[in-house]
This record gives sequence, structure tokens and C-alpha cells, in this order.
Amino acid sequence: MENKDYTVEILEIIRSNTSPGIMRSRLEDYHANDLAEVFPQLKISERRKICRILDLDMLSDIFEHIDEQAAAEYLDEMDIKKAAAILSAMETDAVVDVLQMMPKEKKNLLIELMDDDARKDMAIIASFDEDEIGSRMTTNCIMIRENLTVKQAMSSLVDQAAKNDNISTLFMVTEDNTFYGAMDLKDLIIARRESPLEDLIATSYPYVYGNELIDDCIERLKDYSEDSIPVLDNDNKLLGVITSQSMVDLVDDEMGEDYAKFAGLTAEEDLKEPLKESIKKRLPWLLVLLGLGMIVSSVVGLFEEVVSQLTIIMCFQSLILDMAGNVGTQSLAVTIRVLMDESLTGKQKIELVFKEMKIAFSNGAILGILSFVLIGLYIGLFKGKTFVFAYAVSGCIGISLLLAMVISGAVGTLIPLFFKKIHVDPAVASGPLITTVNDLVAVISYYGLSWIFLINMMHLVG
Amino acid sequence: MENKDYTVEILEIIRSNTSPGIMRSRLEDYHANDLAEVFPQLKISERRKICRILDLDMLSDIFEHIDEQAAAEYLDEMDIKKAAAILSAMETDAVVDVLQMMPKEKKNLLIELMDDDARKDMAIIASFDEDEIGSRMTTNCIMIRENLTVKQAMSSLVDQAAKNDNISTLFMVTEDNTFYGAMDLKDLIIARRESPLEDLIATSYPYVYGNELIDDCIERLKDYSEDSIPVLDNDNKLLGVITSQSMVDLVDDEMGEDYAKFAGLTAEEDLKEPLKESIKKRLPWLLVLLGLGMIVSSVVGLFEEVVSQLTIIMCFQSLILDMAGNVGTQSLAVTIRVLMDESLTGKQKIELVFKEMKIAFSNGAILGILSFVLIGLYIGLFKGKTFVFAYAVSGCIGISLLLAMVISGAVGTLIPLFFKKIHVDPAVASGPLITTVNDLVAVISYYGLSWIFLINMMHLVG
Repeated sequence: MENKDYTVEILEIIRSNTSPGIMRSRLEDYHANDLAEVFPQLKISERRKICRILDLDMLSDIFEHIDEQAAAEYLDEMDIKKAAAILSAMETDAVVDVLQMMPKEKKNLLIELMDDDARKDMAIIASFDEDEIGSRMTTNCIMIRENLTVKQAMSSLVDQAAKNDNISTLFMVTEDNTFYGAMDLKDLIIARRESPLEDLIATSYPYVYGNELIDDCIERLKDYSEDSIPVLDNDNKLLGVITSQSMVDLVDDEMGEDYAKFAGLTAEEDLKEPLKESIKKRLPWLLVLLGLGMIVSSVVGLFEEVVSQLTIIMCFQSLILDMAGNVGTQSLAVTIRVLMDESLTGKQKIELVFKEMKIAFSNGAILGILSFVLIGLYIGLFKGKTFVFAYAVSGCIGISLLLAMVISGAVGTLIPLFFKKIHVDPAVASGPLITTVNDLVAVISYYGLSWIFLINMMHLVG
Repeated sequence: MENKDYTVEILEIIRSNTSPGIMRSRLEDYHANDLAEVFPQLKISERRKICRILDLDMLSDIFEHIDEQAAAEYLDEMDIKKAAAILSAMETDAVVDVLQMMPKEKKNLLIELMDDDARKDMAIIASFDEDEIGSRMTTNCIMIRENLTVKQAMSSLVDQAAKNDNISTLFMVTEDNTFYGAMDLKDLIIARRESPLEDLIATSYPYVYGNELIDDCIERLKDYSEDSIPVLDNDNKLLGVITSQSMVDLVDDEMGEDYAKFAGLTAEEDLKEPLKESIKKRLPWLLVLLGLGMIVSSVVGLFEEVVSQLTIIMCFQSLILDMAGNVGTQSLAVTIRVLMDESLTGKQKIELVFKEMKIAFSNGAILGILSFVLIGLYIGLFKGKTFVFAYAVSGCIGISLLLAMVISGAVGTLIPLFFKKIHVDPAVASGPLITTVNDLVAVISYYGLSWIFLINMMHLVG
């Protein structure tokens, strides 16, 4: 049971000698995405042929599935009027992306040749910032007046259906286009012709304002799990909808951004990212971390005397620093995800910090005891020290490990909570940042305890 | 322009004294998700009242928006026949989740009381493993015989519409339920009654087999950006569909898992996670990292002699180790995301590794020079050493930093590529793992270079 790859089949059809009519009806059997995947493998003349054969509806679907760079290239190959017609039939947000890839003159010429409706829709979407939800909407939705009968509504739907893909929910507006409510198409389909439309309309349907920030509303929109959520302007007029397909992309983008920030990148990168861009995206965090690293180094410098008296303890510095960083990173990841999904009360926040500390304490106790036993053995057997000396040092390591882990768990939770409080995206508290901050905690715990116990109290030297 | 919170309104309606008929028609104006959010704030008697007033269609929608734990609780409060009726009307995958929260006896009793269709659907979905795409499908879709006329298809649709929510794409099957193709509802709506159905059907429509792994097919499904993708069994019979709402959840889950793994957790956690579960999810990685940390420590131990001769160099160990870890984490995050989205050729993989090394080299050169200048100044001014001594040490730090960063960039790219090659999820190459591996690289570069240049060649002591 292998899933078929349609590419070979589609190529065969395109390269066969059948008549345009037959070829069209054969190609129309495939999904636009599968046809789009064949495009890069075609010669220019073949792509031109397809664009003559298929209708605009199909072509626009195909171009929506081609990435913007390639789409701009392919449109450049063909007659400019044809290109404008294809763009006019595409989803507005996809058109905006493709046009951005073109030289300014070509772009303006194309916009001029596009049809009025498409131009107007583009202007609406372009009026929103990239981080506002309005920039991700489509104007492709069915709008119906609220005071119609079932029969009138049905015929209004039939009129609009040819041009609109998102028909499973119908949106009701008043005369001046104010959002009134929504109705499931299935309810309209099964309704009796004479029953009043009003009964079918949900007037308190969820909606979103176009200028809300994506970050702020995405969790709410996800919860509704609807096919499409209406987008309103500030006068409550219906502008368009956010479809669940856009939601898939939005969730993917948002999580990708958070993922990137977590790893200490300022934004997501892909394979085609130019070298210079990649360097620019990574350098800022590295500079911050270098600065923090220097602070850690100067704190370690304070303990130079301790280390020179008891060199062996420096062997285990990296162990304690890393473990503190790891625990902090775990707590950070959990806290960021929790903050993303829910808004916490003060009490819940305190509980979260204590829970993270409890987890760190439990894991720290297990790892501390393990370290005590194993490192003591290691120092005693391989470093030529007495076992009293070995277990004094490893005891100090075990206790420092526990202490550093508990504090790191708290730090990894408190820092994102603090960022959230001051309205900074908690995702900027990246893993590397937490790791470096917790280095400080670990250095002070470890060398501090070593100085007190091993040097001042036990007078060890070695 | 504040988005309305409907909770207060809904509570008012429920607590008012209006007649059941009016109350129902008022509540039906709200979205199921908004009604669901009110449920925890109600008294048992109020919840019972709502369940008497609203129809099954609405109630099942509401229960789909309540989390499974709470839903099980609320169903327990009411008459068992009512509970079974609500479950029968819910999406099958949601029912499975809710039933899991109930004691075994209650669960079996409810299943017995559910209607036959719902029971059959549950059995189909339960037959798939959790990581197979079939476990996430819904049987709630319109299936139509392929040999009907437009008029017959329309009336078959009207018959099924009442029970099915996902109607924007219709799926065509042959007599024995073999998947034949798909059709947009909008095309059916605008088609002339006498035109043949065949012209409207896309026979090479994308599909997925129920037993494909979610990991393997999610990127492909995302590319189609369809409302629903048909799910087939191994005999090519149509079982159900994956809706784009499920896709939102799937993408969210997949990315969440990767995010968690990246931070060194074995799986995602949420706020309600019991302490014991949290400890279990974090301990495995911490144990692995402790083991690796001990290896790093014993390698550092090899350089104890170097450090005892020149204690000052140990102050900057954490700086070099952290920076190497950070660069490795950045490369890792980029590589994991690239591997998730695309399948790379051998040539592209080599290019990726070189690109990551080039980025690391550029950033490393900048940071190395900065460190050379600043750390030299610091040692000269604050550590009471000559500037020759200071810049010899800081030169060594700068070069080690550059070297460690370039190697770390390569390691952060090669390790996930290697995991992918041996068919292990590259996301297990978590940030903490890469950090610890790169510690080894950094320790050897730094102390190795210090030993060669500073002690063997320049004979520095201090």
C-alpha cells in the first residue's frame, strides 16, 4: 500500500499528443498541489502550454501552491494579461506574496491590469501590518444579507459560490455590511424553504478584529476550531475570514518562531537563507551571550585562589554548570508552553514556580547522590587521593549540584514569568540565555561551597 | 474595539427565569466553544438544566470543546441514557478521549447504550495506533456513489447533511465503498441539474492510508491545504477524513513534541501534569547528560596539570564552553527544522554543513576578536599581569573560541543529519545533548591550545 506519486502520470499527460480538450479534462482530475509540484520539471514551452489549456480557476489554485519566488518567475514567462488574470483569481494574501518578488515596474503594471475587486481586496489586506491577524485573512467568503428568506439566501449563495471556495459557513451582514452572525451551510441546505432564516443564524458568533495581533488572538481562534472565523474592521464591518488552512500555517509559523527563539536565533531560517542573513540572525544573541559569559568568567575569577589551592575541583565545574543549565532549560520550555496556552492567576504562577523547584529538587537529589558515589570512586581510584579526600570533594559536588539545580529550576520559571509580566514575549528568554544565567548560580554555589567546606573547614589541599 | 467576552451574557441567560423555549433559542446564538467555557462556572443543577434544554446537536458540539477530564465528570452527573446520546452525536475521536477518563464499568455501559453507527465508527478509529494518522480522522464526512446524476447527488447530500459537519468536499465511492474521487460542494451547487457528475469529480484526488505514521505524512497533508483529506484502509476503501481543524491540532502537537525534545524533555508537559510524571519525563535526559558531563569532567581532568601551572585560564573555560554550546544549538535548531520540511539530497546535506561552518566561522571571527581585545584588557587591568601576558592568554582564548565555534557548528548539523540517516527522529538530538558534546570539543581546543602555546612555547606561569 504505497501512496501514489502523481508526478510521473502528470508529466506523461502533458508530454502526450492528446488534444487540448482531453488534456484539460485529464489534468483537472489532479489536485492543484500535485500539478504545482510538476511545474519546476517542465520546460518553459510546456508551462506556457498548460497555462493555455487549463482554466483560470485551476491555474490560480496551482499558483497558490507554488512558492512565491518560483511563481513570480513563471508568471514572468507568460503574456502579462494572462498573468494578471491568474493573479486576479488567486487568494489575495498569496498575490501579495508573489508581487513582492517582482521588480517594481512589472508589479505596478500587473496591479493595474488586475480586476477591480482583486485590487480592492489587496488594498484592504495590505492595510494591515504583518503581525496583525488581518494580514492573514482572505476576502474569499460568502456574505449574505440577514433579512432574506431561505430561498433568497440559497440563490445569493449560488451566485457567489462560483467565485468563493470557503462556503461551509455563510456570514450574515446588515445593509451597511455590519457583521450580524453566521450560519452553517448544512443548516441552510436542510432547511425548509419557508422557514425563517433568522432561526438558522448564530448572532453571537465568534469574530476577530483585523488589527488584533496574531500572538494575542491565535489561541482563542484555535479553540473555536471552525472552518472560518470572520474578521471585522473597527466599525464592525465584515472584511473577510481566517480559514482553518490559514490557521495551520499560522500555528506552524508561530511555533517555528518560538522554536527559533528558544535556540537563540532572532528568527526562523530555511535552507535558502543567504549566508549574510543567517549571520545577522544569529550574531545578536551570540553577542549578548558573550557579554554574559564574560560576567560569568569574572565571577569565576573571584575564586581563582580557591582553585589554585585545590585544582581538582575545577574538573567538575563544567558538570555542575551544564546540569544547572539543562534543568533551567527544561523549566523554561515548560513555562513558555504553559504561558502560550493559558493565562495564569497569581496563585497558579506561584504554584508553578514551586512545582518546578520540587521537580528540580527530586531530580537533583537523585543526580546528586549518583554524583557523590561515582565521582568519589573516580577521584579515589584514578586521581591517587585518599577516599576521605575523594568523598569530601564528591560530597561537595553532590550538594552543589542539588542546590544549583533547585535554584536553576526557579530561575528558568521566574524569568519567562517576569518577561510576560512586563509584556515582553517570554520566548526571548531563550535556552542559551537561561543557561548562561544559571552558570552564575552554579559557579557561586559550587566554588562557594568548596571554599567554605573543603578549604576553610577541612583544609584540603591538592 | 474590545473583543466581547460572552461568558457574562451566557451566565445571565442561564440564570434568568425565561421559558425553556426562549432560553434555547437565545443560547443557540452562541458558539459551542463559548458555551463550553461557561460550564465549569455552573452548578450541577444548572448544567443539568442546560442539558435538558439544548438539543443533542448543540450539546455534542459543546462537549467537543470541553477537555476530556471535565467532560467525563459532567457526563457522570446526568442520566446515563442522555450521556450516551450526547456521546453518540460527538466526533468519534473526541468520544474515545472522553471514555478513557471513565471507570471501566461506566465506560462499557455507555458504549453499550451508544447507537450502532457511533459504536462502529469508534471501533474503526480504535483499530489504529496513536501515532498512525487513522487515529486522528473523523468518520463524519459525506460519501456519495460515483454513478449518480447531479440531482441524485444533491439529494443524497441533503440526506447526509443533517448528521455531518464537513460538507465542503464530497467524497465519491464505488459500490463496494472503494474511494473513487472528490468533488467540491460549490461545484455541485452551481452545476446544471442535467450535466454529468463525472465532469465534476477529481479522480486523482490526494488521500492517505490510515496506517501511515503521522510523522511521515503530515508535511504532505499540510501542502494540500484542503478542508479534508480522505483516509483509506489497505483495500482502498474510504474510512473517513482528516479535517483541517485536526490538522491544526496535529501541527500544534508535532511542533510541541519537537519543542519539548529540543529542551531535553522526553514529552510535552502541561500545567496539570502530576509531579511524578514531570520527574519521569525529565530524569532520563538528565541521567544521559550527567553521564556525558562526567566524561567531559574526566577530559578536563587530563588538563589539571596545565591549569595548576596557569590558573587564570580556567576562568574563561565556561565562556568558551557556553559559546560552543550556543553555536551548536543554533545550528541544530536550523537543521532540525530544515529536515522537518524537506528531504535533502546528499549534495544539499554537504552544502548545509559547510554553510553552518561558514556562519560559525564569520560569527566566531567577530566574537574571537572581541574576546581577544576585551579579555586582554581585563586581565591586564584587573588581574595585575603584564599586557604581554594578558594578550598572550586572550589571544589563545580568541583562537580557541573561533575553533570551537566552527567545529560546534559542524557537530550541530552533522548529528541530526546522522540521526535522520539511521531513521531516528533528529529531534532527539536535543539542545542539551549538543551542548554537552560540544563541551568536549571546546575543552580540548581550549586547554590543548593553552598547553601548546602558553606553557610549552611561551612558558607562562601564573
